[in-house]
Amino acid sequence: MRNYQQDRPLTKSAIVIGGGLVGSLCVSLLAQRGYKVTLFEKRGDIRKLESANGRSINLALSHRGRQALKLIGIEDEALSHSISMKGRLLHNINGHTKSVIYDPVSNQCIYSIGRNYLNRALLDVAEKDPNVRLCFHHKLTDVDFQTGFITLKSIKSGEILQTTADLIIGADGAFSSLRSFMQKTALFNFSQNFIDHGYLELCIPPERGGKLHPNHLHIWPRRELMMIALPNLDNSWTVTLFMPFKKFESIRNSENLLHFFNDIFPDALPLIGETELKNFYFSNKPSALVSIKCNRYDMNGKFLIIGDAAHAMVPFYGQGMNAGFEDCFLLNEILNETRDDVGRTTVLFTKKRQIEANAICDLAMYNYEEMRDLVTKPSFVIRKLLDTYLAKIFPRIWIPLYNSVSFSHMPYSKCIENKHWQNQILYATFSLLILVMATLVVLLRAI
Amino acid sequence: MRNYQQDRPLTKSAIVIGGGLVGSLCVSLLAQRGYKVTLFEKRGDIRKLESANGRSINLALSHRGRQALKLIGIEDEALSHSISMKGRLLHNINGHTKSVIYDPVSNQCIYSIGRNYLNRALLDVAEKDPNVRLCFHHKLTDVDFQTGFITLKSIKSGEILQTTADLIIGADGAFSSLRSFMQKTALFNFSQNFIDHGYLELCIPPERGGKLHPNHLHIWPRRELMMIALPNLDNSWTVTLFMPFKKFESIRNSENLLHFFNDIFPDALPLIGETELKNFYFSNKPSALVSIKCNRYDMNGKFLIIGDAAHAMVPFYGQGMNAGFEDCFLLNEILNETRDDVGRTTVLFTKKRQIEANAICDLAMYNYEEMRDLVTKPSFVIRKLLDTYLAKIFPRIWIPLYNSVSFSHMPYSKCIENKHWQNQILYATFSLLILVMATLVVLLRAI
Repeated sequence: MRNYQQDRPLTKSAIVIGGGLVGSLCVSLLAQRGYKVTLFEKRGDIRKLESANGRSINLALSHRGRQALKLIGIEDEALSHSISMKGRLLHNINGHTKSVIYDPVSNQCIYSIGRNYLNRALLDVAEKDPNVRLCFHHKLTDVDFQTGFITLKSIKSGEILQTTADLIIGADGAFSSLRSFMQKTALFNFSQNFIDHGYLELCIPPERGGKLHPNHLHIWPRRELMMIALPNLDNSWTVTLFMPFKKFESIRNSENLLHFFNDIFPDALPLIGETELKNFYFSNKPSALVSIKCNRYDMNGKFLIIGDAAHAMVPFYGQGMNAGFEDCFLLNEILNETRDDVGRTTVLFTKKRQIEANAICDLAMYNYEEMRDLVTKPSFVIRKLLDTYLAKIFPRIWIPLYNSVSFSHMPYSKCIENKHWQNQILYATFSLLILVMATLVVLLRAI
Repeated sequence: MRNYQQDRPLTKSAIVIGGGLVGSLCVSLLAQRGYKVTLFEKRGDIRKLESANGRSINLALSHRGRQALKLIGIEDEALSHSISMKGRLLHNINGHTKSVIYDPVSNQCIYSIGRNYLNRALLDVAEKDPNVRLCFHHKLTDVDFQTGFITLKSIKSGEILQTTADLIIGADGAFSSLRSFMQKTALFNFSQNFIDHGYLELCIPPERGGKLHPNHLHIWPRRELMMIALPNLDNSWTVTLFMPFKKFESIRNSENLLHFFNDIFPDALPLIGETELKNFYFSNKPSALVSIKCNRYDMNGKFLIIGDAAHAMVPFYGQGMNAGFEDCFLLNEILNETRDDVGRTTVLFTKKRQIEANAICDLAMYNYEEMRDLVTKPSFVIRKLLDTYLAKIFPRIWIPLYNSVSFSHMPYSKCIENKHWQNQILYATFSLLILVMATLVVLLRAI
């Protein structure tokens, strides 16, 4: 399933800055088009590092990510190293649980996959391609948009390297170096907004992992805060606690912490373990969550930012990685369309992608409210039932929001539009229903 | 009028990054408090440079700027090198003009002052203070917020310098280096927004400058675009054309240009001169206008950004420099209040200033509409007459928006609030008037 463009051998070159998930996927996609690709990554080779603390950090892989992995032929391998999650398992404060299936009509799932595993697998694929050169420990230090040259510094030797290519891509994350240079040019609009909530990662160890209902994304929704758990292959679960920074700060000692967990997450505490909880909690600081928007991703017909560098989002729709992979998929499509006219491709990428990226950034922000609060409301349950019923009757027309985002490649902005007209239809129907009933009541009384 | 704090000799140190208007004023203010201050500026000493192209670029100095200049004893000198502007002189498309005085009640003026002159004067004052060391050609290359150390590189020798101080201030402009490091830390919200309009500077030479009505800020308001002119001491005028970038791009040759000026600014064309206009226009590119907002200006009890680095704004209220100078004034006040507790000062600075800076950024954006369009409308003329009348009767209560911004040190957010209640009173009065008149008509008919 590799999409070599064998009919027209290319002599184009590309540089990708950043060897995370999106960068290393992008390298492979460009290499199999025939580009000579160099990857520069600031840190060392993740494949040679021991995992920081033995815990796996996992992500939810869904349709958009899968279709990009398919292009480089590792979708199946990735799925075989992941755990399917067919729905949310909601834990209420009394420890009672309820399963809410994502797609009761056609049983589509999202997949919990280890970040480290996937990054390593993507680098392995890249390295096997003779068109690819991987350069670790290289930091971007300067960019000259006029000449198209970039300057990098080897962190190990201190050597300075000046280089260029036909296409230079920044996939270097939310605090992208390439973007920081773009931000200094005229007419580049940019915003970064942190939310007031932070997150802290905890863990349920393999020996107690079996006590959680399998194949679900577990949620403990508590209105102003929430905890979630995603499964790992070794039976452990990665648990993430999201709550206001102020709340994190207010929990200062072990007594506070155990009291808080006993009150708010009574069923999770024995699974995590009191000692382990104290260790996790007090040896780590909560991390911040940022949403980043730009009005363009391309510059001077050569430079492009993708993934978090272009549109970091809060993690509540599980779309950060998927949207980044979809960037690579789209880039490949536009290069097909323009027959590798790099200048036009970069401009078209902004044109096609910016509105979609803004849409998913907004959706991700909205979904935090859904996950930590709305899921517990009767209105949410009724809507879910209605959506399922209508999706069964009109499977091609009535696609609920979550499904269009996670199980289709419908443009994100279209997913929002869809939801709007679905709302309108439902409101109109209910209004009509009430009107008819009221009329009937009046008529019956009149008789 | 120097505010030496002679009663308590200080042994504090400060670093100011950026030797523009705000940075060099800030240096003097800190030095006269007793701080040992080092100024690092990326470029060379502006006093040793020939002015780039012989033209003066001028700015409108008003109350907030003046009160800060007064603190370092150069208000009078600055005013003696400036030209008062008592109002706007509006040029309509037929060449007819109309003077609209800013403050018909107490005749307050704003002052056109050369940027280069003022920057040089401020550096002269700073240099005379034994507490000050000026270091030109030094670029900020790294910041460690944890240790408080910054790294600078000498552009001339390549030498690397690591240093720190009790207080480190970034006054390094809209594309501040210090801010770019702050932006990479958690919970620092930031946005930069360019407007669709650019500007190009033109000139009316001294020999024809006498033909413009003196002591006014001239405006050619043309709804979608506008041109303004501010006077210089040598009888020349600095003319600035603001219009959409698309419009700039559509004027491609001399014929287009002269046609456009003949149509839109017929009375200005002979003053600028056809040959000179063509030279100015085609040898320069229009510049962009950016508005910058941050949710904080301080970091780790030591670092602070001020001026454009903290809150760059579009130039339409003439408050960019004045707000920057007011930052210095406020910083000095807070240092008085905290008795030079630097940590508390930086936190209080954000707390007191952020809402005000956002307010003036918004006002500046609004004033573009006023200057290029609203000033030509009858409703504007009526409101101006009403404001003048009411300000005469209630001089302490009824302060029109422009006056509170330009001729007072009322917090910017208060200026906006003021305008709101004034609007409410006027609307209520008019509504009452109409009600009374309608009642009278009904009564008269009934009789």
